[in-house]
Amino acid sequence: MPKALITLTTDFGLTDHFIGAMKGVIASTAPLAQIEDISHQLEKFDIVEAAFFIGEFWKLWPKKTIHVVVVDPGVGSSRRPILLEAGGQYFIGPDNGVLTFVMRDAVKWSARELTNTKFFNKQVSRTFHGRDIFAPIAGHLARGVKPAQLGPKIIDPLQLAIPEPTRTSRRTFTGTILKVDHFGNMITNFKAPDFASIRTAPFEMVVGLETVRHLALNYSECDPGEFYVIEGSSGYLEISLNQDSAARRLGCSSGAPVELTIF
Amino acid sequence: MPKALITLTTDFGLTDHFIGAMKGVIASTAPLAQIEDISHQLEKFDIVEAAFFIGEFWKLWPKKTIHVVVVDPGVGSSRRPILLEAGGQYFIGPDNGVLTFVMRDAVKWSARELTNTKFFNKQVSRTFHGRDIFAPIAGHLARGVKPAQLGPKIIDPLQLAIPEPTRTSRRTFTGTILKVDHFGNMITNFKAPDFASIRTAPFEMVVGLETVRHLALNYSECDPGEFYVIEGSSGYLEISLNQDSAARRLGCSSGAPVELTIF
Amino acid sequence: MPKALITLTTDFGLTDHFIGAMKGVIASTAPLAQIEDISHQLEKFDIVEAAFFIGEFWKLWPKKTIHVVVVDPGVGSSRRPILLEAGGQYFIGPDNGVLTFVMRDAVKWSARELTNTKFFNKQVSRTFHGRDIFAPIAGHLARGVKPAQLGPKIIDPLQLAIPEPTRTSRRTFTGTILKVDHFGNMITNFKAPDFASIRTAPFEMVVGLETVRHLALNYSECDPGEFYVIEGSSGYLEISLNQDSAARRLGCSSGAPVELTIF
Repeated sequence: MPKALITLTTDFGLTDHFIGAMKGVIASTAPLAQIEDISHQLEKFDIVEAAFFIGEFWKLWPKKTIHVVVVDPGVGSSRRPILLEAGGQYFIGPDNGVLTFVMRDAVKWSARELTNTKFFNKQVSRTFHGRDIFAPIAGHLARGVKPAQLGPKIIDPLQLAIPEPTRTSRRTFTGTILKVDHFGNMITNFKAPDFASIRTAPFEMVVGLETVRHLALNYSECDPGEFYVIEGSSGYLEISLNQDSAARRLGCSSGAPVELTIF
Repeated sequence: MPKALITLTTDFGLTDHFIGAMKGVIASTAPLAQIEDISHQLEKFDIVEAAFFIGEFWKLWPKKTIHVVVVDPGVGSSRRPILLEAGGQYFIGPDNGVLTFVMRDAVKWSARELTNTKFFNKQVSRTFHGRDIFAPIAGHLARGVKPAQLGPKIIDPLQLAIPEPTRTSRRTFTGTILKVDHFGNMITNFKAPDFASIRTAPFEMVVGLETVRHLALNYSECDPGEFYVIEGSSGYLEISLNQDSAARRLGCSSGAPVELTIF
Repeated sequence: MPKALITLTTDFGLTDHFIGAMKGVIASTAPLAQIEDISHQLEKFDIVEAAFFIGEFWKLWPKKTIHVVVVDPGVGSSRRPILLEAGGQYFIGPDNGVLTFVMRDAVKWSARELTNTKFFNKQVSRTFHGRDIFAPIAGHLARGVKPAQLGPKIIDPLQLAIPEPTRTSRRTFTGTILKVDHFGNMITNFKAPDFASIRTAPFEMVVGLETVRHLALNYSECDPGEFYVIEGSSGYLEISLNQDSAARRLGCSSGAPVELTIF
């Protein structure tokens, strides 16, 4: 029988005891669960980036996986702790929009507010719900507690407005940089299938002071020092350099505007 | 039956093969053990910080957990390798004070010097006891070797002097910054329950050039740009900013003096 | 019965969804496998460093371990995805030399090109073979698929030229810095057993502007601020400082020349 899987995604970094505390609570609550680190290096307090991050991997996990997501600048305030069920998987975290892409991409979802303090730690601090609420809830879920025991259904979990490209003239669309990845590739919010005509038609993608006119199939195909558009593995158009950081060269980061004209 | 749990805490970083080597030794020695990373990003050579770090999470783990702690600037010197038993859990590491907070907080503990080279790697290097002593000992313990087989009891494992606040006038106490966390919160050595009177009485906490006069319940309650005292999740008073690094703004780090006056 | 072990070594960093995607694919393909992170912090695109890194830990893992190694600047180009079998273990990655040290140090090895797309993800992107080829292959291997089902044998996997010290005069050898570790120790390509005469004879090791004349048994034996040669835990001579970075003090990094004269 496969064991319960619990993944951890946080902005806690690894210079503090936070992860050791969360894992200890999980191991004590659900000794048979398997814990998988996704990342603890998310940008501090950046809910939008975390939402995109989760959105890119969750569908690849098996049913019943329990994802704990803690990017939680409002910890201890009135923001609710929630459980989201989507695609047969579970997501536990603060109700601050961090699960927006999951809700957008799931065929259907349902959410609960975590109100049953019986499944929290005995003492709940004001500043570390990862240890005191989210980790114990994950552990209890892993050992078979039913979602209905954790709290009542809610219909209004917070969803962030996700920026979509807009048509700004007959041939031109304005979008934005969703994220700069570890390699400096700039992931735009232009979905590749929606703009498949750039495979055959001349185009210009303008970001910062640069105009990119070439489409490449992979990074190593790009000439050194030249910017290329690539249909990235996430399904979005990316602006890339071969073995160099496009974002650093352009001095742009997430949120920067991108203009795409297809002739 | 729960499998044996082994946690790893080091200052080894992740750009070298050190962790791959330690995990390989454990997996070869105890194939059924489950290895959990706590952190490999502890400050290099900083025994005091490592001691505090361990002290903050160990109690949350289940009995029989085996914690391997390697912050070991004296590797290869005459410092002893030890096994500490505390709270039904095991701690393996150098005898350099890194387990000070565990010994302080455990109801009782006992220690052994690791002398039985039969349970070490066949060849023991002078510079990597994580691979050659601590990992194999953890593996053997996980597969059922008894502590008494590993070496004789000792009564004098090294314990660091932990700085405690001192009363410096009728109303004033002088303490220190124990640690700056990933978010820039400054964790003082003032234990919150010992200074609970700041909940009702006016107070001043002076650190660097700043005087903090307000107590907040959580980070998001703080006004932007204003310093607050918070009763942190570790049980100590912290100096914090809302979504900003208090430590960077104040230019202070661990070891800085803090003065608390309660009126 | 021990479960299948899969290790992950990449240059993907931890600010993106890449690792969450790979682990999800593995967990979905082989629910009983145990995944162990080695590192995701390898230097971007640096195949030589990655090859050395793998070479330093693989022999310590048990037979049947599946090592996934993704440092892959040529992803999506004509470079082949391969499976290497060596020492009873499996290695999955791009055919770009990243497994050079494994091939050098194994008693024997055999390699296959991964051509059977039946064991890939249904859709294979041009830029993320970690998710679309290497992770699913690892999962299928873990659940019992035979290597012969994955593709045909090849005899020419790429092997990098590994720099060896050369004798440049009667008493002098010229080598290089293979790697600078997390602590700033400079690992040369002088194998300690080949130069054991420095234990008894006077010697000079010149790197940058520094001439090192002393051999130490461990780091803490070195006088503060003085450079020492140490027989490191990897079996190479290292240049080290006590609790300080030799590399930063010398302003040298991997690839720098080192001259050793034994009198």
